Amino acid sequence: MSLRVAIIGPTGYTGFHLIDLLLRHPAAELTYLASHREELPNIVEVFPRFLGRIPEDLAECRPIDPGAIGSEADVVFLALPHRAAMAHVPALLEAGLTVIDLSADYRLKNPALYESVYGHPHTDIAHLPSAVYGLPELFRDDLAGASLVANPGCYPTAAALGIAPLLERRLVQPDGIIVNAASGVTGAGRSPAPHLHFPEQNEAYGPYGQIGAHRHQPEIQQSLSRVTGSDVGVLLVPHLLPIDSGILESIYLQPVAPDLTEEDLFDAFEQAYADEPFVRVRNDLPNVKHVVGTNFCDLTVRLVKNNGATRVVVFSAIDNMIKGASGQAIQNMNAVFDLDETAGLL
Amino acid sequence: MSLRVAIIGPTGYTGFHLIDLLLRHPAAELTYLASHREELPNIVEVFPRFLGRIPEDLAECRPIDPGAIGSEADVVFLALPHRAAMAHVPALLEAGLTVIDLSADYRLKNPALYESVYGHPHTDIAHLPSAVYGLPELFRDDLAGASLVANPGCYPTAAALGIAPLLERRLVQPDGIIVNAASGVTGAGRSPAPHLHFPEQNEAYGPYGQIGAHRHQPEIQQSLSRVTGSDVGVLLVPHLLPIDSGILESIYLQPVAPDLTEEDLFDAFEQAYADEPFVRVRNDLPNVKHVVGTNFCDLTVRLVKNNGATRVVVFSAIDNMIKGASGQAIQNMNAVFDLDETAGLL
Amino acid sequence: MSLRVAIIGPTGYTGFHLIDLLLRHPAAELTYLASHREELPNIVEVFPRFLGRIPEDLAECRPIDPGAIGSEADVVFLALPHRAAMAHVPALLEAGLTVIDLSADYRLKNPALYESVYGHPHTDIAHLPSAVYGLPELFRDDLAGASLVANPGCYPTAAALGIAPLLERRLVQPDGIIVNAASGVTGAGRSPAPHLHFPEQNEAYGPYGQIGAHRHQPEIQQSLSRVTGSDVGVLLVPHLLPIDSGILESIYLQPVAPDLTEEDLFDAFEQAYADEPFVRVRNDLPNVKHVVGTNFCDLTVRLVKNNGATRVVVFSAIDNMIKGASGQAIQNMNAVFDLDETAGLL
Amino acid sequence: MSLRVAIIGPTGYTGFHLIDLLLRHPAAELTYLASHREELPNIVEVFPRFLGRIPEDLAECRPIDPGAIGSEADVVFLALPHRAAMAHVPALLEAGLTVIDLSADYRLKNPALYESVYGHPHTDIAHLPSAVYGLPELFRDDLAGASLVANPGCYPTAAALGIAPLLERRLVQPDGIIVNAASGVTGAGRSPAPHLHFPEQNEAYGPYGQIGAHRHQPEIQQSLSRVTGSDVGVLLVPHLLPIDSGILESIYLQPVAPDLTEEDLFDAFEQAYADEPFVRVRNDLPNVKHVVGTNFCDLTVRLVKNNGATRVVVFSAIDNMIKGASGQAIQNMNAVFDLDETAGLL
Repeated sequence: MSLRVAIIGPTGYTGFHLIDLLLRHPAAELTYLASHREELPNIVEVFPRFLGRIPEDLAECRPIDPGAIGSEADVVFLALPHRAAMAHVPALLEAGLTVIDLSADYRLKNPALYESVYGHPHTDIAHLPSAVYGLPELFRDDLAGASLVANPGCYPTAAALGIAPLLERRLVQPDGIIVNAASGVTGAGRSPAPHLHFPEQNEAYGPYGQIGAHRHQPEIQQSLSRVTGSDVGVLLVPHLLPIDSGILESIYLQPVAPDLTEEDLFDAFEQAYADEPFVRVRNDLPNVKHVVGTNFCDLTVRLVKNNGATRVVVFSAIDNMIKGASGQAIQNMNAVFDLDETAGLL
Repeated sequence: MSLRVAIIGPTGYTGFHLIDLLLRHPAAELTYLASHREELPNIVEVFPRFLGRIPEDLAECRPIDPGAIGSEADVVFLALPHRAAMAHVPALLEAGLTVIDLSADYRLKNPALYESVYGHPHTDIAHLPSAVYGLPELFRDDLAGASLVANPGCYPTAAALGIAPLLERRLVQPDGIIVNAASGVTGAGRSPAPHLHFPEQNEAYGPYGQIGAHRHQPEIQQSLSRVTGSDVGVLLVPHLLPIDSGILESIYLQPVAPDLTEEDLFDAFEQAYADEPFVRVRNDLPNVKHVVGTNFCDLTVRLVKNNGATRVVVFSAIDNMIKGASGQAIQNMNAVFDLDETAGLL
Repeated sequence: MSLRVAIIGPTGYTGFHLIDLLLRHPAAELTYLASHREELPNIVEVFPRFLGRIPEDLAECRPIDPGAIGSEADVVFLALPHRAAMAHVPALLEAGLTVIDLSADYRLKNPALYESVYGHPHTDIAHLPSAVYGLPELFRDDLAGASLVANPGCYPTAAALGIAPLLERRLVQPDGIIVNAASGVTGAGRSPAPHLHFPEQNEAYGPYGQIGAHRHQPEIQQSLSRVTGSDVGVLLVPHLLPIDSGILESIYLQPVAPDLTEEDLFDAFEQAYADEPFVRVRNDLPNVKHVVGTNFCDLTVRLVKNNGATRVVVFSAIDNMIKGASGQAIQNMNAVFDLDETAGLL
Repeated sequence: MSLRVAIIGPTGYTGFHLIDLLLRHPAAELTYLASHREELPNIVEVFPRFLGRIPEDLAECRPIDPGAIGSEADVVFLALPHRAAMAHVPALLEAGLTVIDLSADYRLKNPALYESVYGHPHTDIAHLPSAVYGLPELFRDDLAGASLVANPGCYPTAAALGIAPLLERRLVQPDGIIVNAASGVTGAGRSPAPHLHFPEQNEAYGPYGQIGAHRHQPEIQQSLSRVTGSDVGVLLVPHLLPIDSGILESIYLQPVAPDLTEEDLFDAFEQAYADEPFVRVRNDLPNVKHVVGTNFCDLTVRLVKNNGATRVVVFSAIDNMIKGASGQAIQNMNAVFDLDETAGLL
């Protein structure tokens, strides 16, 4: 029997990819699309790609009615902006649903930190403690049977997977970590804006936002601190690439021991990810081209010496929409419901 | 009276841009195109863009005959691969020409370093001492009347301009500098190769080469060491962007003094470049989109504090083909011949 | 002495290109930027590319004050949307200015046709008769001393230049002409819209709008009818390309005489454009890549026979923003003021 | 029990997509990769995307040994260039394999036409009569149990699906058909070439080849003549788009009856394709963006009247690598072996 799945907020890019992946999932069935828009959208009109792939009555979005959703679905993906998401979570949990929230609302455990980062208070502190941070490769044990999963951000997924094994084994120093990150434009969402207008982004490349103040920076630090048990300092510097999808992070770290070898670094990754279906430790250099459209995280590492200084350089690549959002959400669903974690994702 | 200009090796992208810029130069006239190919190319067939812009007899490339070139030109741009370039320089100088070499052959002052970086011995050590490194904003005084100019590499131009003023004023530490660089594909040259085939680079992004061993790394270090008078350590990590042209470097440095302010950093840049027509110190963030097709270098700087660590982050953007190659070569020509340095470049 | 130039509506892409070209024009000086926005924009903030290239006081847009503009400029470029443009023209002419209007308001001679095509009545019928259609290669004689120039549309420029010589010499039939046109996204303007959001246009290609009802279709027919003296029937089918700029039209026509040769067709183009600095009759196939950034129109023609049917196929390529808008507007200015028509455009 | 599948020539783009699709096919198992290269390639080194998805011993290509292939596979996909393909077919058939040939060698039924189009004689005329042209939507009855399938070309697939229903119902005239086609660069293959070098194709668009002489033109005519029972005349004019994958054809036809309506046209398509899982008759306009990565063919049609002339305009979009090559090849395999035709393709 199939798991019955609802999506709230399906008209953005994460919604698009959730639908696209779920339509091919062998053990899940999409049963309910819910929108907060006043004029309820038809998802085939929003995404012409879905013509002929979604039954007509399912394509018509319905209102966000937790009771109705609860009676037609077992699990609900929340693909709403932060703040809007946590307004719905209590009622959805109440309705008996497992909630997988793709917004940032339940990622940061400390509500004061949440408020300072997102600029408004957290309105569902009651559920924060039970929310599970859904990064299976690092925190899989939390997932089985969880009722509320906070799906990680895109930059944090690539960064945590690329750094955690090295920090955990004390191979690199926990502060002064630099994450030079570059993302495709879907990462900026689906709402048109002057700087995301095609001729402004095409043939363009540069950093964006307030440098050192990206909202994903504390999220990365929280994950890594949990792994190491102490404070970790990361500087995340994001850039926008003239492509649809894909994130590549070039991560600069400093070794702890002077005799660290590149082999030690590879060993750390290979031990950590030997049984992980979605992390590929590569010898060659990752490229977004090799992961786009997949749930893989491609990693490699180099030890570089120059003029007396030694650096560890990690490259970590994911599809920001798949492993960085909707694919990982489905991986989390699989883990929560004890399905094969790769179901629908290979 | 116009300066008479020859180009040797005009069929690559630097040759293309030299021609394109020289056709609009108010005080220079293209008189000779010379190729080392056995079958001499017609430049309009090579570059359909030039149809109607180049006289037919000029468009037909001629052999590399230093005597003939010397009689028809005052200055010659060498747009040949390294190694091939230095094979021609002695005879061209002998023929009375001013030589502006866009290859790497005369950039590194130390022939042993050259040999270790480029993998073969230097064959014109005699002219190395008199060769001038043509980065006018840092070393303008060398240029007036020079007979041999080594035109800087693309990454070194953006890096040196973005770092020198801070090092010179001892605001940042001279080692452990990280240059995370990204370049458009023209930087890889015009010869087709599997990894530069359109469908391989389109929608792609990633690092390339042997990390920590890019040939431009010692060139950057040489420039900066000259500015500071002591050793400088730089790690250059290059990435390829799915665009034609443009380089953006995200440069990570550490402050010397704990009370360094962002204002100090801007002051350093503004003092250094107040009178420079081609360096723009910006408040907003640079983007390759804003410099492509121009000879500008766009710079900005940020001071970022996080978890006790403080970093200086510089962003430096140029068009790799203009300020990073052909535009700077013409700027150098202007400086050598005491023309307005901006002639033909604004 | 320089021609003094004002631009009204400089914040769109045509405004951008007007400024960019005028800053390099040897005989024109930009003196006034006027905006209809309530909050008057600073053009360097709108277009970061112009940093350091425009005096600060000029960069601050001023209100649209015809008297003030008239006292500081000789000629004004109107880069406003249709309808808004004709609201300003009478007062600008009154103020003694030569007006070059880049909107569609004065292109169609018949106000009833204008109303049916643009969906609202023409509000300045008085000036329609004296407005000159500024396509110099076809109608140059009208330009000298004109006070109001209607600058042609982008598709109509490429189409008229590609068809007129063949129709004029009665080599092809005047009806059933098909113009399969493809344009870069700048042709759709600078206002963000869902379908012009980067991830929607990137890696995309398709037709758009109501097929057979593009507003440029009657404009093309008007130009060609004027050339032939009788009705011409053209079907314009526009497509959007995932590039910034460039238009390529693939034009299908039927020969009049059964013994027409490809040589006849080339002869027609070569006679028509022998002295035209901006039309290049090519033997090889045009590509937007070879004209982008230039004021050229690249043309070629083929005669194709297959299964008894014979077709004439013309390919016509321009930069939609240069020869299709701002470059042609400057060419028109040059012609009106008896400057070298190529001034500032090569 | 799974169908055992071999691929000969897996290192091109069609090979890539065959592997990618077969890895997800529920009823087929990849068992043999064979290469004609002297140094046998490892497919994971050729395509870094496949790391971790292909067993190591399978990844190592083996020689083209028909006996060995016949003992390990039931069906073989030939992804070799034309001419090379037919050199292997007899032995593969002899070995008991079902052969699905993605080259052009068995598409044209007339060997004299083949020779004139491809420039060399057909060397396996014996198998031409039994070769089945694998366009299931038009010629499905031929497929069940076939031993040799000629997989259609990319342009012919989009064209035949877009034209056949209208010709079959005598709604449009069989001659003077114009197919203005545009394709992504994967259509040109995976061998690097100067004109396919990234900076040459990026931001580019134009026609290519000898206009009116594309090898797919007679293939389109053959399919349509078979549908109508008489001669059909088609002019195919191909253009190259700066995207990886996707074909969109804008097809211009003339109505037979003066009272033809757009509804008649839609009726024809809807009747023809009512039960087809891979053809979507759309009301809105097709775009390559909506079909890339899928096996769909998106179609729509418009009836346009202008100045007395009436035209039928069909837009047909496919992924040139999926429905235009590898996806259709798998669809054909499914049909031959009586599997669900959509297996592995939705």
